[in-house]
Amino acid sequence: MMMRLYGSSQSGNCLKPKWVAALLGLDLEWVEVSAFDGSTRTPEFLAINPAGQVPVVVLSDGRTLSQSNAIMLHLAEESRLIPSDAYNRAKMFEWLFWEQYSHEPAIAVRIARMHYLKIPEAELDPALLTKGEAALARMELRLKGAAYLVGDALSLADIALIAYTRNAPKGGFELARYPAVGAWIARVERDLGLVNASEAS
Amino acid sequence: MMMRLYGSSQSGNCLKPKWVAALLGLDLEWVEVSAFDGSTRTPEFLAINPAGQVPVVVLSDGRTLSQSNAIMLHLAEESRLIPSDAYNRAKMFEWLFWEQYSHEPAIAVRIARMHYLKIPEAELDPALLTKGEAALARMELRLKGAAYLVGDALSLADIALIAYTRNAPKGGFELARYPAVGAWIARVERDLGLVNASEAS
Repeated sequence: MMMRLYGSSQSGNCLKPKWVAALLGLDLEWVEVSAFDGSTRTPEFLAINPAGQVPVVVLSDGRTLSQSNAIMLHLAEESRLIPSDAYNRAKMFEWLFWEQYSHEPAIAVRIARMHYLKIPEAELDPALLTKGEAALARMELRLKGAAYLVGDALSLADIALIAYTRNAPKGGFELARYPAVGAWIARVERDLGLVNASEAS
Repeated sequence: MMMRLYGSSQSGNCLKPKWVAALLGLDLEWVEVSAFDGSTRTPEFLAINPAGQVPVVVLSDGRTLSQSNAIMLHLAEESRLIPSDAYNRAKMFEWLFWEQYSHEPAIAVRIARMHYLKIPEAELDPALLTKGEAALARMELRLKGAAYLVGDALSLADIALIAYTRNAPKGGFELARYPAVGAWIARVERDLGLVNASEAS
């Protein structure tokens, strides 16, 4: 049975493992589901993930796994996307946990509320902006002196962080204020074979 | 140079790597700092972690590492606390990321606001309670049929999750509603050599 990834194309968290599979040449069937059209609430989907959340992967032996960063780590085991140096590997984990705690809850949430739910900016919790700007500033600090977040090569840290950072303008964040982050987005998009956001209409 | 861990004894996130070091017999010097007394804002501490957050570890070669779960993973590499089976290892990561995204921001935050900041319960965001109860229910579902969160042995998943779960009553959560979680707390506290919360006054 081919590995199946249930996800929404609009969700950065879902795209992370899709990109990893593509980079590593893994066979992975993408099944589009969405919280917006009810397809994550069907009995069939809830049998796979009782929490009703995406992404979730059904492995070739039928067992399931959720949490975007945990799925990426599983797909990428012993690949070049996980640093072989122990300290760099630890720094990769530092970024992965930081992404879920300090970046995604501000930047992804503001993108969802502004861009998808069309909530007027004035009605949003102001902490989403300050917390998101602090996250971008932290990335800028690292990327001013380095091409990638860990060591000198692409790793899962970059893939986790680009998922929502590249769409930060949809959440009202001005990427022009973080030029090293902007250059890194273009670099990682090239590595992942994505259309550069600035070239897309 | 001995490895130094800067942390606050009141913070579950800080205790996680301390417990791992104790279990594995690693030499680790604990340096008590606290956001409450200003010691995480001194120039000396900010030189170690510009974000002013704990825990942070200074490794024997002087390099630093933050994020509680990333520090635990680094200390525990190739130990019995990380499952050798690839699927179980992936499930451990699933719990670690879930803890930082869906458990800590509700349960630890409610403990901090009620127990340490003494904010009246009526003034708290009601979402903290519903989100925390959902997290405890998810743990109960797993632990009704298993002694540990992953496989049949103690792993970093249990250490990450017990840090705040054992103090959930200080955040107004009724652990009596989650009997399997209660039994697991006693089991993991025994494994970690901690005083059982129910025996402490």
